[in-house]
Amino acid sequence: MRELKERIKKEGKVLPGNIVKIDGFLNHRVDVGLMRRIAKEFARLFNTTGITAVLTVEASGIPLGAITAEELGVPLVFAKKAKSDNIEGGLLRSEIYSYTYKKHVTLLVSGNWLGENDRVLIVDDFLANGEALRGLVEIVEQAGAELIGMGVAVEKGFQPGGARLREQGVNLKSLAIIESADENGITFREDEDE
Amino acid sequence: MRELKERIKKEGKVLPGNIVKIDGFLNHRVDVGLMRRIAKEFARLFNTTGITAVLTVEASGIPLGAITAEELGVPLVFAKKAKSDNIEGGLLRSEIYSYTYKKHVTLLVSGNWLGENDRVLIVDDFLANGEALRGLVEIVEQAGAELIGMGVAVEKGFQPGGARLREQGVNLKSLAIIESADENGITFREDEDE
Repeated sequence: MRELKERIKKEGKVLPGNIVKIDGFLNHRVDVGLMRRIAKEFARLFNTTGITAVLTVEASGIPLGAITAEELGVPLVFAKKAKSDNIEGGLLRSEIYSYTYKKHVTLLVSGNWLGENDRVLIVDDFLANGEALRGLVEIVEQAGAELIGMGVAVEKGFQPGGARLREQGVNLKSLAIIESADENGITFREDEDE
Repeated sequence: MRELKERIKKEGKVLPGNIVKIDGFLNHRVDVGLMRRIAKEFARLFNTTGITAVLTVEASGIPLGAITAEELGVPLVFAKKAKSDNIEGGLLRSEIYSYTYKKHVTLLVSGNWLGENDRVLIVDDFLANGEALRGLVEIVEQAGAELIGMGVAVEKGFQPGGARLREQGVNLKSLAIIESADENGITFREDEDE
């Protein structure tokens, strides 16, 4: 998605360790107009016939998740992050490793809000190691729901999450795949969908 | 707001300790169409001339915050919750007590995304003890920004947060104020704005 890549080039800051900081429009201050245009792109790229829910994970996936859900006319469900010792009954759950917090985290979704009649699009703002998204796929499977696909705004293509999810058969579409981010700047993977 | 009160009456569950659970449409599964109608109500109730940002706090304030920001044509900024020992420089911050997690939490907003030229509407899904919202007001003050008002979907009127914020002079509008919630059901405060 050209507009998204241009924003990343213009406003993204590359920090040591190949970290790309885009918190001015994606995940701290959020350009909600851009989120709407990303949501429209997801609507174009996925076959959303019969979709019943958009699923994301707190916190930074929620703005894009909410606007995508509205674009598709379905509810948003967001998984909550709990400490591993905070597990209750009646919940769908997946254990993931958070590289941000350097600890194991349990993703939780109430079994009331996702079940075998659901057709789900997973949405997130960012994909790097893909632990959170792997956890969401597991929760969709546990619910017996059908996964339509996975829409991501920004993927770090040089980290393993995206490749793993694609190998697993997930229909993943990332609108900006960063191939490299260093002192020479940011480069993107060629985009087959543009 | 009649529609919101009817949804609470119809779908809300009263749990021991006067807890009102409305996670089927507000803060776990989210009815984003309802969030849009709440956002339109905020646009009607507040003078949003010259507004520059909507401010909320992760995680459950974000769906309503994002849709309100889009309704008003401004960015969303969401405060992050950090542990008290995780404080960095260059940040606006406020220490609050989380009744949910029973511990002190620091709310953080980057000084890059809120400053003295900002006119801010604070938005949240739920108001009970009001600690998170008190923290957001403090962050707006630290930034030197102007607070236009505070829009809340559901307030528990029998808990002290709302009264404290109004005494402090905050222009707070809650679209459904629960006066009591017990085995006899849920009752609401009369609404002057309807």
